[in-house]
Amino acid sequence: METETAPILRITEQGRNEGKDTVVAESYLTIVLNSQELVTLLCSPTKLDYLAVGFLASEGFIKSKDEIEKIIIDDERGIAQVTTRGAVDHAAHISSGRFIASSGGKGFRSYHTLDVSGRAEIKSYLQVRAPEVFALMEEFGQRSKVFQATGGVHSAALCDITNILIFSEDIGRHNAVDKIFGECILKDISTDDRIILTSGRVSSEILLKVARRNIPILLSKSAPTNLAIKLAADLGMTLIGFARGRRMNVYSVAWRIVPDEK
Amino acid sequence: METETAPILRITEQGRNEGKDTVVAESYLTIVLNSQELVTLLCSPTKLDYLAVGFLASEGFIKSKDEIEKIIIDDERGIAQVTTRGAVDHAAHISSGRFIASSGGKGFRSYHTLDVSGRAEIKSYLQVRAPEVFALMEEFGQRSKVFQATGGVHSAALCDITNILIFSEDIGRHNAVDKIFGECILKDISTDDRIILTSGRVSSEILLKVARRNIPILLSKSAPTNLAIKLAADLGMTLIGFARGRRMNVYSVAWRIVPDEK
Repeated sequence: METETAPILRITEQGRNEGKDTVVAESYLTIVLNSQELVTLLCSPTKLDYLAVGFLASEGFIKSKDEIEKIIIDDERGIAQVTTRGAVDHAAHISSGRFIASSGGKGFRSYHTLDVSGRAEIKSYLQVRAPEVFALMEEFGQRSKVFQATGGVHSAALCDITNILIFSEDIGRHNAVDKIFGECILKDISTDDRIILTSGRVSSEILLKVARRNIPILLSKSAPTNLAIKLAADLGMTLIGFARGRRMNVYSVAWRIVPDEK
Repeated sequence: METETAPILRITEQGRNEGKDTVVAESYLTIVLNSQELVTLLCSPTKLDYLAVGFLASEGFIKSKDEIEKIIIDDERGIAQVTTRGAVDHAAHISSGRFIASSGGKGFRSYHTLDVSGRAEIKSYLQVRAPEVFALMEEFGQRSKVFQATGGVHSAALCDITNILIFSEDIGRHNAVDKIFGECILKDISTDDRIILTSGRVSSEILLKVARRNIPILLSKSAPTNLAIKLAADLGMTLIGFARGRRMNVYSVAWRIVPDEK
């Protein structure tokens, strides 16, 4: 269950009354990679296989479905056991929205040490018109049922220029995006020439995660950071923030948003 | 600098025009504890000493100022070197808004293994009237200058029933709260009978962080999770969500919000 009902006391200037509120469920997923416990994610209790695979791909532990031998999900205990065909380096750094877990002696982090070295520029001639962006963001808002009920989750979507292809919600903004990419990997859905929508703020971590899938346009309802903007420009990604109602701010590579012909 | 100016293309239904946007700065802080690299936080580049100490306290590495022998902040490189008087166990789990970094073999996570064992109920007879809550939240919104400029940060504050005593902003909602507690520890400011305000959603992690400082009332502009509500009830904390404008939802221990005498 993604939501629960909780008794509340609602207080306004007019007075107080007891009622019920729909609240979002917080759950955990422990990812065990090749019999070794890797990490425990705070998450919404849905699409745990996609979350596990998306997390492993985003953090560089796996690249494609071919590398996965077996996935066993224990919904009850919140455990994903992933077995790969070949060996995997467990000692890699793991990044999250808040921190990079240290495995010791890897040195300090700055723009120059961000994971951009050797990363190819995003190659895509995808273009989209502003009314198409506004329409996608409107559909995105309507699809966010758990957010509408609770206000407590982030959402993400993979789109072409006219349709939402995959949609996900999670209490973590990173998880919502990882679930999208996990589903793409497991279902062999290409992310080339696609668009990612996110409700969340765009930090360098989110940007790099999306760049890793060769996605040319990232559309957010919220704010980007200065580092995300710099990375987007360097990697050739179109980064759009504050896409709300019928307006948006384009922070990089604006030629992909073509003027509307009147 | 907490913010930067970025060139943008603003697109609305009326057309497009080039302009400038104020965007939030994303930075890193690597915490080195007793000469050993512990973690790298994504953060806003302010109050790095408070952030380092607050993080170490929230994660259980230190308890009080007395345990700290020396703090050296390298603003330029984003490094906080903290030396403690006694030895510290580096092998502890580190929790963030998204995941618990594994140090191997510590077992899986569930409500029962959350860090509540042996935790005393919060003892406080603090009470507050609804108009006082509304006034605090109004001042809180006005103080959030970086949020007003960029939309890209979270804020947190320590208050008594009429005043904001300490205020902080950070791109991470956990960091904003850790900065508050770091400042309390370094300046010997008591958190007993105080109130914490946060702009962010309240997960179990945020709730436990606040409970650790014996704070009886946690006020959020956003949504709590089901687990945060359960923990608040178990620990005797008053948890309030959606405190916006002149309304709020009280999720636990409602007696601390006293009816207004007319």
